[in-house]
Amino acid sequence: MTHKIAILGASGYTGAELVRIIATHPEMEIVALTGDRKAGMAMAEVFPFLRHLDLPVLQKIEDVDFSNVDLCFCALPHATSQAVISELPRDLKIVDLSADFRLRDPAAYEKWYGKPHSAIEMQKEAVYGLTEFYRDEIRVARLVAGTGCNAATGQYAIRPLIEAGVIDLDQIVIDLKAGVSGAGRSLKENLLHAELSGGTHAYSAGGTHRHLGEFDQEFSKAAGREVLVQFTPHLSPMNRGILATVYVRGEPAAVHGALAARYADEPFLQVLPMGQLPSTRHVGGSNFVHIGVIGDRIPGRTVVVAALDNLTKGSSGQAIHNANLMLGLPETMGLMLAPVFP
Amino acid sequence: MTHKIAILGASGYTGAELVRIIATHPEMEIVALTGDRKAGMAMAEVFPFLRHLDLPVLQKIEDVDFSNVDLCFCALPHATSQAVISELPRDLKIVDLSADFRLRDPAAYEKWYGKPHSAIEMQKEAVYGLTEFYRDEIRVARLVAGTGCNAATGQYAIRPLIEAGVIDLDQIVIDLKAGVSGAGRSLKENLLHAELSGGTHAYSAGGTHRHLGEFDQEFSKAAGREVLVQFTPHLSPMNRGILATVYVRGEPAAVHGALAARYADEPFLQVLPMGQLPSTRHVGGSNFVHIGVIGDRIPGRTVVVAALDNLTKGSSGQAIHNANLMLGLPETMGLMLAPVFP
Amino acid sequence: MTHKIAILGASGYTGAELVRIIATHPEMEIVALTGDRKAGMAMAEVFPFLRHLDLPVLQKIEDVDFSNVDLCFCALPHATSQAVISELPRDLKIVDLSADFRLRDPAAYEKWYGKPHSAIEMQKEAVYGLTEFYRDEIRVARLVAGTGCNAATGQYAIRPLIEAGVIDLDQIVIDLKAGVSGAGRSLKENLLHAELSGGTHAYSAGGTHRHLGEFDQEFSKAAGREVLVQFTPHLSPMNRGILATVYVRGEPAAVHGALAARYADEPFLQVLPMGQLPSTRHVGGSNFVHIGVIGDRIPGRTVVVAALDNLTKGSSGQAIHNANLMLGLPETMGLMLAPVFP
Amino acid sequence: MTHKIAILGASGYTGAELVRIIATHPEMEIVALTGDRKAGMAMAEVFPFLRHLDLPVLQKIEDVDFSNVDLCFCALPHATSQAVISELPRDLKIVDLSADFRLRDPAAYEKWYGKPHSAIEMQKEAVYGLTEFYRDEIRVARLVAGTGCNAATGQYAIRPLIEAGVIDLDQIVIDLKAGVSGAGRSLKENLLHAELSGGTHAYSAGGTHRHLGEFDQEFSKAAGREVLVQFTPHLSPMNRGILATVYVRGEPAAVHGALAARYADEPFLQVLPMGQLPSTRHVGGSNFVHIGVIGDRIPGRTVVVAALDNLTKGSSGQAIHNANLMLGLPETMGLMLAPVFP
Repeated sequence: MTHKIAILGASGYTGAELVRIIATHPEMEIVALTGDRKAGMAMAEVFPFLRHLDLPVLQKIEDVDFSNVDLCFCALPHATSQAVISELPRDLKIVDLSADFRLRDPAAYEKWYGKPHSAIEMQKEAVYGLTEFYRDEIRVARLVAGTGCNAATGQYAIRPLIEAGVIDLDQIVIDLKAGVSGAGRSLKENLLHAELSGGTHAYSAGGTHRHLGEFDQEFSKAAGREVLVQFTPHLSPMNRGILATVYVRGEPAAVHGALAARYADEPFLQVLPMGQLPSTRHVGGSNFVHIGVIGDRIPGRTVVVAALDNLTKGSSGQAIHNANLMLGLPETMGLMLAPVFP
Repeated sequence: MTHKIAILGASGYTGAELVRIIATHPEMEIVALTGDRKAGMAMAEVFPFLRHLDLPVLQKIEDVDFSNVDLCFCALPHATSQAVISELPRDLKIVDLSADFRLRDPAAYEKWYGKPHSAIEMQKEAVYGLTEFYRDEIRVARLVAGTGCNAATGQYAIRPLIEAGVIDLDQIVIDLKAGVSGAGRSLKENLLHAELSGGTHAYSAGGTHRHLGEFDQEFSKAAGREVLVQFTPHLSPMNRGILATVYVRGEPAAVHGALAARYADEPFLQVLPMGQLPSTRHVGGSNFVHIGVIGDRIPGRTVVVAALDNLTKGSSGQAIHNANLMLGLPETMGLMLAPVFP
Repeated sequence: MTHKIAILGASGYTGAELVRIIATHPEMEIVALTGDRKAGMAMAEVFPFLRHLDLPVLQKIEDVDFSNVDLCFCALPHATSQAVISELPRDLKIVDLSADFRLRDPAAYEKWYGKPHSAIEMQKEAVYGLTEFYRDEIRVARLVAGTGCNAATGQYAIRPLIEAGVIDLDQIVIDLKAGVSGAGRSLKENLLHAELSGGTHAYSAGGTHRHLGEFDQEFSKAAGREVLVQFTPHLSPMNRGILATVYVRGEPAAVHGALAARYADEPFLQVLPMGQLPSTRHVGGSNFVHIGVIGDRIPGRTVVVAALDNLTKGSSGQAIHNANLMLGLPETMGLMLAPVFP
Repeated sequence: MTHKIAILGASGYTGAELVRIIATHPEMEIVALTGDRKAGMAMAEVFPFLRHLDLPVLQKIEDVDFSNVDLCFCALPHATSQAVISELPRDLKIVDLSADFRLRDPAAYEKWYGKPHSAIEMQKEAVYGLTEFYRDEIRVARLVAGTGCNAATGQYAIRPLIEAGVIDLDQIVIDLKAGVSGAGRSLKENLLHAELSGGTHAYSAGGTHRHLGEFDQEFSKAAGREVLVQFTPHLSPMNRGILATVYVRGEPAAVHGALAARYADEPFLQVLPMGQLPSTRHVGGSNFVHIGVIGDRIPGRTVVVAALDNLTKGSSGQAIHNANLMLGLPETMGLMLAPVFP
C-alpha cells in the first residue's frame, strides 16, 4: 500500500532531496508540498531538476489537507518548525529535519539556539533520529527529530567507541570538512561561488557550533557521564559531503574492531579495512557512510575518518530511513541508490 | 525474470556508470565484469563508491563464461571494441558503448578514426543507438552501437527540426560545453584538476571532432541530402554534463513546435516552455534531456539549447535504455532516477 | 610623482581588483575609498585578502575630500554612477567602470537600461574605454567609460575584422562563456556555490544582454553601417575569465592576418599562431588577452576565440590602463603582472 | 644591478611560479631555463600563461652556461636534485626547492625518503629555508633548502609557541587541508579533475607524510628536546592553498600573544585579531601568511589556524625571498604582489 506523504518546506535543499529520493521510492506518494514564499509555484520552477515528476503545486501550510496524509516530513528552519508542528494533527506521523526536537533538555535548546523552546511537551515526545542507534524507539515513534548532519557524521565515527569503552573520553577532537549545501539555499555572501570556490576555512570554531549540543547529549548518554568533545568544522569548496577526521586516544585495533562489530549488520555503514580511509566523493548522492581507521606513529593514538553525504545520510535519506521504520516498510526501501561518481 | 549481464571494460567511467544504474535495476543482475589491467581486483578497489555492492571480481575477457550471459555491455576503447566483439558468441546480445559501430560507412570510419574497420560485416549489422529515433530497430537488434555523448546532445536538439523541415540545413552551428568525465579516466595533463578547474577552452575545433562523423551520417539521413554542421566543443570545469547551444535559421515558434511535438511522448525528453533554457545542473546523474528554445532579436534566427548528462543519457543510461528494449523489458525500467541537485 | 587616487564603490569585486593592482603600482597612491553601506569599516574587514595593505577606511562619498584627488575610479552600479559623477568636481579625472557612459546615444541607453539617462551632457563628453581603439581620445579625456567585460572580449575578437573588411557583417555569432565574478558580489540564488558549481547554462539569450548595446554601437561605428550580431552568454563554473567563441564568415588566413597585424604592437594583446586556441586559465589575474583563429572544415567559415580576465582586462585592469594614459604615465605601468596558473 | 637567474626544472608548477614572480621582479633576469623532457620547447608551449614574456628556450641542464648565472633555483624532484646540485659549480648560489637538503640528519633523510643521501657533504652545508627563522644564516648561505609547503604552514603556526613555551609539547595535532597543485603536474589518477573535484579525503595519514621529517627536526630543535606531532593532511578540491588547523594545549591569550609578538615585524606574516580565523582564499597567489587563534570551550585548549599559498609562500615565493637575502636585495622585492580574490 502506498503511503501518502506531505513535505513542509519543499523549497529548500533538504526538501528537494526528499522529493528526489521519494521519486523512485516504491511505497511513498507525495500528496502535498509547501513553500511559504513560493506557494502557488510548481516545483519545476523552484527546482527545475524535478521537472520530469508529476508533483503537487507548492501550497501554504495552512492550505494542506492533512486528513489525507500518512506521514509528514518537516524541512522548515528551526524555531519555525516547532511552531508549525505544534499545530499539526496529534496523530500525524512526523519526521522533523530541523534542529527543534533534537535536544531533550529545554535548557540545552535555549543555550544553543538562543531562545526558549515553545513546544516543550512535544520535545519530550520526540525520538532522536540517528537510526542505527534508536531503531526500536523510531519504529513506534510519532515524532522523530532528524539529527544535524555534522552531528550524525561525528557520531558514526565515535559512538561505538564510547559504547565499547576503547577510547579516552576526555581527548576527542573532531576536525570536520563540510560541503556548502549544508548551509542551505540562503543568500549569504560567504556562500557565493566567487567567495567559496577554490578555498577553505574554519567556521563556528572554538566550541560554538550548535551541533555540539547533540554531541554533548548523545556522547554523555552513551558514556553515562559528561563527555565534551572539541569540534572544528570547515567549509570545503564542494556541494555535498562531510568528512569528519576524528582524533582519539585508544588502540587502533580496538577502535577498528569496535566499529566493525557495531556496524557489521548495518545496511548503510561500511567500515573499510584497517588503514584505508574514505572520501566524500564515494558516498555522494547516497545513504551510505564510509568509515576508516588508521593508527598514528605515536602509540595509543588513532584517527577515525567518516564520510557521508550531508543531504542524504546526513538529512533527507536519514529522514526517509526513519519514515520507512515508522510506516512498517522494509527499512532500506528506496534508499539503495548507489553514489554518483565522478 | 532477471537477465544476466556482463560488462566488458568495467574499470572506466562508463563501465562504472553502468554498474551504478544496474545496482537498482530490478531485472538485471551483473554476472561478469572485466578490466584487463585490473583483472583480479575487486570493484571496490577500483571504484570505492561501489563498495556496498556484491559484485563479481574483475576478470580478463578471455576468462568470462558467456554461456551464462544474456546481454553484454562493451565499454572498451574504440578499435579494441571491434576486435573483442568479433570474438564474442554470435547469438549474444551486445550494446557497444565505443565508437566502433556508430558509422555505417567503412570509409567514414576510416576517415574519422584513422584506420580501416576490421569487422565490416558486424558494422553493417549494428543499429545506431539513439533510442528515440531507432526504437523499433533496437528492439530486434543483436548489436546496438551507443552514440557519442556530444553526438547525442546535438541530435536531440536538431534532428526533429530537420525532420520537420523548419530550419535551413546549411546554417547549423553547434557550440557545445562538455564536462570532463567524457574524456574518461585517462592520464592526460590537461585533465588534471590543477589544469582544468576554474577555466574553459575549446578543443577539437574547426571541424575535426570525431562526433562530426555521426552528425554527418545522421543529419544527412534525416534530411535526405548531405548536411554538414559547424561544431565547436569546449571543455568546462565540471565533471558531468553537456550543454549544446545550437544556432539555427528558422522561426522560433516552428522550431519549438517541432521539438515539442516530436518529444511529446518521450519519457526522458523534456521540452521547456518557449524562452526558457536548460542547465546541465538539472540533469546530472539522470537519463533526462532538457531542451529549450529562444528566438533571437534578429528575425529568422533561433537558438536551441539541449542539456544532458554525458555519462548517463549520453552513454551508460542510453545503453541500458537500449538493453531494456532488446530484452523486452519496460523501456524506462531502472532509469527513472531523479537528477542529483545540488 | 605619485598620483592620488580615490575609488568609489570599493566594496565590490571591481573596486577590490583596483586596489589589488594599485597595491604594486609604483605611481598611484590610494587616498580615499568609499563603500556606502560599509562606511566606517576597514578594507581588511570587507576584503581580508587586502589585509596587508595600509588603506584608508571606507567612507561615504559625501565625506571624501576630492581636492586632494588626482583621479577617481568609480566602481558603482549603473544609474548610481551617473548621479554620483554629476556631483563630482568638474575638473576631476574620472574612470567610470559602470555602464552609464558607454552608450553615446541616450535612446540606446534608455532602451538597454530601462530608464532615461540623467546626465546627458556628461554622456556626450565621455570617451569609450576600449583602450587599444580609443587611445588618443583617452589620453586627453576627463571622463572615460569602462567597457562591459563581455563587450570588450567580443570586440577584441571582431573589431579588427570589421576594420579590415575580411568578414561578412551580417553573419557574426558570439557564443560566450563567462565566470561568475562578472555578476558581482550580489546576493542572488543562482550565484550560490551550490547552484552554480559543476554546471553551465545560457543567460540573457536571444539578443537581450545589455552588452549588445555596446556591440551595436561600436561595430556599426567601425563598419560605417549598422551591424547586429547574435550573442549568447553562458555562465561557467569558474570565478574569473571570459571565453568568446566567435563564428564568422571569412577566410581563416585573412582573419588571422587582420588580427595579427592590428595587435602586433599592443602590449596586452597576444594573437596565437594559426590553429591554436586560448584558454581562460592562461590569462587569469592578468591584463592580457589571448586570441586564436581556426578555419572550419566548411570553406569560408572561421572561428575566432578570445580569452581575458573579466575583472582585470575586462574591467579594473582596463581602467588602470586608461588611467595611466590620462595621467601621462607609461601605459603598461603596474599592469605587467603575469597570470596566475594554476 | 640585475642578477642573472637560472631555473632548473622550469616545466613544473614551482618552476613556472618562479617565472611568474620574477616576471615583475625589478632586479632579477632569467637567463636559463631547463626542462629535461621538454628541452627545445618554448615556455609558451609548456605554460601558455607565460606567453607574453620573452624567455629563454628550455634546455637540458648540461647545456646551461653557469658562468653567466648569479643564482640558480633548482625545482627538480627530490633525489634528482642532489645529483644535479653535486655537479653544479661550487661557487654558485643555489636555492633548492626539493626535499633533498631539508633534513640535516642523513639517517632522517633515509628514513623518510627511502634511500641514502648521495651528497652528504652538501647536505651539511645547506641552510633550512624557513626565512623568518633562519634569516641570518640564509643571508650568508650558498645553498638554501626550501621547506616543504605543509611543513612551512605548520611551523608558522607552532614554532613561536614552542619558542615561547606556551604549549604542551606532547599534545600537538595538525589537521591540514591542501590544494592539489602541491602534488605537482604529475599524471596520477587521483589528481584528475573528475576524481578530485567536489570531494575531500585524507592522505599519508597516521604519521607517514614525509614533511613530518621537517616537523620533527625543527620542532625538536626549537624545543631543545624531541617533539613529535600528529599530522593528517587532506586533499581539498582547490588548486592553491594550505590551511593548517592546529590543536594545542595552552591558553588562548598566551598563544595569540606569542604569535603576535614573534611576527610583529615580519612583512609577510599577518596575525589576525583574537578569535578571527583565516581562509586560503585570502592569500592565493601571494607570499602572505594569515594566522588566527581561537580558544576552545574546554579550558586550556586552543586552536591555531594558518593559511598560505603552497606554490608561493610555501615554495617559490619563499625561494625568491631567500634569494633576495642571498643576493643582498631588499627582502620583499618583487614579492608584495597582492593575493588574487575572488
